Amino acid sequence: VPVPFLLPTDQDFFTMFERTTTTIVEGAQLLETLVADLKDLDVRLVRLKEIEHEGDVTTHETYEKLNKTFLTPFDREDLHQLAAQLDEILDWIEETGQRFGLYKITETRPEAGRLAHIIVQAVSELAAAIKLMRSHAKRAERIHTHLVEINRLENEGDQVYRQALGRLFEEEGLRTIMVLKWKEIYEALEFSIDACEHAAHVIDGVLVKHA
Amino acid sequence: VPVPFLLPTDQDFFTMFERTTTTIVEGAQLLETLVADLKDLDVRLVRLKEIEHEGDVTTHETYEKLNKTFLTPFDREDLHQLAAQLDEILDWIEETGQRFGLYKITETRPEAGRLAHIIVQAVSELAAAIKLMRSHAKRAERIHTHLVEINRLENEGDQVYRQALGRLFEEEGLRTIMVLKWKEIYEALEFSIDACEHAAHVIDGVLVKHA
Amino acid sequence: VPVPFLLPTDQDFFTMFERTTTTIVEGAQLLETLVADLKDLDVRLVRLKEIEHEGDVTTHETYEKLNKTFLTPFDREDLHQLAAQLDEILDWIEETGQRFGLYKITETRPEAGRLAHIIVQAVSELAAAIKLMRSHAKRAERIHTHLVEINRLENEGDQVYRQALGRLFEEEGLRTIMVLKWKEIYEALEFSIDACEHAAHVIDGVLVKHA
Repeated sequence: VPVPFLLPTDQDFFTMFERTTTTIVEGAQLLETLVADLKDLDVRLVRLKEIEHEGDVTTHETYEKLNKTFLTPFDREDLHQLAAQLDEILDWIEETGQRFGLYKITETRPEAGRLAHIIVQAVSELAAAIKLMRSHAKRAERIHTHLVEINRLENEGDQVYRQALGRLFEEEGLRTIMVLKWKEIYEALEFSIDACEHAAHVIDGVLVKHA
Repeated sequence: VPVPFLLPTDQDFFTMFERTTTTIVEGAQLLETLVADLKDLDVRLVRLKEIEHEGDVTTHETYEKLNKTFLTPFDREDLHQLAAQLDEILDWIEETGQRFGLYKITETRPEAGRLAHIIVQAVSELAAAIKLMRSHAKRAERIHTHLVEINRLENEGDQVYRQALGRLFEEEGLRTIMVLKWKEIYEALEFSIDACEHAAHVIDGVLVKHA
Repeated sequence: VPVPFLLPTDQDFFTMFERTTTTIVEGAQLLETLVADLKDLDVRLVRLKEIEHEGDVTTHETYEKLNKTFLTPFDREDLHQLAAQLDEILDWIEETGQRFGLYKITETRPEAGRLAHIIVQAVSELAAAIKLMRSHAKRAERIHTHLVEINRLENEGDQVYRQALGRLFEEEGLRTIMVLKWKEIYEALEFSIDACEHAAHVIDGVLVKHA
């Protein structure tokens, strides 16, 4: 049973989730930079790996704290799931970047930039939603607005992904192996956005429970 | 805590879920028609988009109602998840249709027709299961029969998908790009069936809870 | 509400889950043998199908028992989900094997062997974790150690998968259709490992709930 909002509960969870989303936003911005310009890819991928590791450390601390805290501000399972979903976002952002290196991509494609930008927007909405959870009771509606926007961005991402694949399959003079590589990259970009939507669903579930 | 079946609860949720499954069945039947005969594809895809939009509207109304209703016939979270899974089915059905247009497919393949038919069967079973949920207490066993059938259809779909891919990879004289396009289409067909199974799992979870 | 550990609850669930994991380990070992040496593939795939069927039977019995038992050692829904996730692992192991037959693969690739070995390790950890659940109260920490190891193996699997795909895309003289086939096989191997991690998550959720 969740704790009523008037009781003092452990506010550190919010600090932890905010730290995680700050790291995710940083990762997403680096991915956008990297996708726009593939120069210095190796250096950027080293930094992206570091950011992903920072996220892992905070996630791990969140799990530890969850196991030790008696009163949690929301259901323990929901906080656990939220931490796991946030981790998933950064994992996919990093995976996306790594695929550029692994497949030795030297020229970018416009849809990749559009998808990377959608990721930046979606994680920023998520960060805003999580910031509002600290004083959830009065702000459910404002949180909801951010979740709706994430949902809209995910739909937009789907459209861009769909068109990107269509264009890729029709492109003359592109080696089929290159089509396969780009399909993997578009998929990783789309999975990153999907992961944002999954995190939004967890938060939405919490709101429904406390409605 | 769920409400005992004797108490009057809001029957409108069932009406809403029934409206949604009617829309899904319509979408699945259109997809089957479209896959069998790729003439007039553009007109049919416009209609499919409309059907998907109708589903979206009902899903949105269901969410709104869930947030406003105090006594729900089953756990609020379960109804929320069910609505989300039903939405997912129609999304995949529409996505499948769109891929035929996007990839400029002009000749169908037999396995696509078989998979589309399995989708029609699975969504019809789902509609039947949901119709019975209105008076769940006495009908758990009959609901279960439909869920088992959805599970069987999903297994059958897996087999057809597996064979479809095997045959696709072995086919002489097919351009590799066309292999890629059909793989995307077969996947969308299979994901539509998977989405039916996920919705069946949610219903099964509700039955287990109320056993 | 879960039953306190001092009350006598139905120990048969543990026996059933142990039987299932024994079957899964057997399936994983057969897959490893098969991947290492593709001779006698047909005979081995028949045996793999049998093993998968044995797993299905136990899963089905577990579901039946769950529906009939009043006091379950953990939440009914969690046990249901655990049974479903274990079933998923064996499904993917079997699917992986079948793809070798379906795609008429005659020469193996080193990363496939490495991934098959990770699967054997992950399912063994899972079997060990489930063995400890019988007397969970005193052993939460030891169970957790196995779950952490499964998580580590999943990360290792991701790395191997990533490299396998990179190498596949760069390989000179490999037909693109063969690239597609191997991609499907690597994916099935990776999904088998993912399914282990999902089962570990369910167990972790149970531990968090009872912390």
